[in-house]
Amino acid sequence: MADVIALVSGGLDSTTLLYQLRAEGHSLRALSVDYGQRHGRELTFARELGAEFGIDWRPLDLTRLVQFFGQNSLTDSTHAVPAGAYSPDTMAQTLVPNRNMVLLSVAIAWAIDSASQAVAFGAHGGTYTPYPDCRPAFATAMDAAARVCHTAPIEVWAPFVNWSKADIVTRGAELGVPFERTWSCYRGGETHCGKCGTCADRRAAFVESGVPDPTEYEVG
Amino acid sequence: MADVIALVSGGLDSTTLLYQLRAEGHSLRALSVDYGQRHGRELTFARELGAEFGIDWRPLDLTRLVQFFGQNSLTDSTHAVPAGAYSPDTMAQTLVPNRNMVLLSVAIAWAIDSASQAVAFGAHGGTYTPYPDCRPAFATAMDAAARVCHTAPIEVWAPFVNWSKADIVTRGAELGVPFERTWSCYRGGETHCGKCGTCADRRAAFVESGVPDPTEYEVG
Repeated sequence: MADVIALVSGGLDSTTLLYQLRAEGHSLRALSVDYGQRHGRELTFARELGAEFGIDWRPLDLTRLVQFFGQNSLTDSTHAVPAGAYSPDTMAQTLVPNRNMVLLSVAIAWAIDSASQAVAFGAHGGTYTPYPDCRPAFATAMDAAARVCHTAPIEVWAPFVNWSKADIVTRGAELGVPFERTWSCYRGGETHCGKCGTCADRRAAFVESGVPDPTEYEVG
Repeated sequence: MADVIALVSGGLDSTTLLYQLRAEGHSLRALSVDYGQRHGRELTFARELGAEFGIDWRPLDLTRLVQFFGQNSLTDSTHAVPAGAYSPDTMAQTLVPNRNMVLLSVAIAWAIDSASQAVAFGAHGGTYTPYPDCRPAFATAMDAAARVCHTAPIEVWAPFVNWSKADIVTRGAELGVPFERTWSCYRGGETHCGKCGTCADRRAAFVESGVPDPTEYEVG
């Protein structure tokens, strides 16, 4: 059992991560970062999760970083979110440069300050080439860096890094994750749009896993 | 020649770094991060440097991170800066958890966004065990992580990582660095206090290098 800082966006993957870490008996803290993503709705759910888990949950506003994130459709409202399943091109349009290293570095700072042993994030593989900072090589490299960034080593856990999103849905269903409350859509609507790359991924993961999809999509 | 993002605090080390990178002919951008350090004076000089170099210099306010940095004397004004040359204990009191990974991760984001090839920081060895995130092992690990965090590899340069501070003073003197304008002191006074660990390090580096020390110290 370890003291762990979990990066929790309130999306399907990181919510399942939090349930899994709790099931494994770890002592948890959770960090949710607002880096200017337009789908701020998931942060609301992350806050609720923190309260329901009875853990130290902290939001962190890093929207000042947006100046370094350039033109991507997640943080720049003048830039449309591409429709359709992910392709390498549409993934590039939704890439927030070095997002996971920024988030992990802050989580590691908190881990040091709270004498925790590990930080965890919900990176996983995808159908297309995944985001570079979700790949196993990145998770391994960050683990190596975290082990030498302080006098005591910190570990970086990415338990889903070799899983598909369908594997996460399967595991989340076993754990009783309230999928209907998790948010994936990259657009900021009232319901999931059903059309953007991450909505397409979400739908496909439910279909592939055989778990009923409780999500309300604008486009059926 | 490369496009490089330099982390520049306005202190002696990072100022010499900027002069060295320019002497090597690189195309530069510079990032100065306010993480709540009480010696904010050095940021003023960093801004002047950016203007004098005619480069894209950007300040970044990350003071919201202070909540994760706990009780250290650099960011917490209720916590006294220890006097005297560094010892392992006084270094621990001035350690800002995971500072360099946080700063590098943002610089790397900007490198990706600006199609730069490298980020550079002024980490160097010290008389005592240096800060963990200034050691060669940390710089090497961050370089490895930066090379896999994006579709194009980013390099992390730490050209002084095996140098002493006296080596940096020697090199800075050759490069014409205006040492009298650089700021080291961890206290926020009008002049360098002359007593804190970093003032002691600064003084010793000038003595060891044989370069005249232009710094005005409160305590002679």
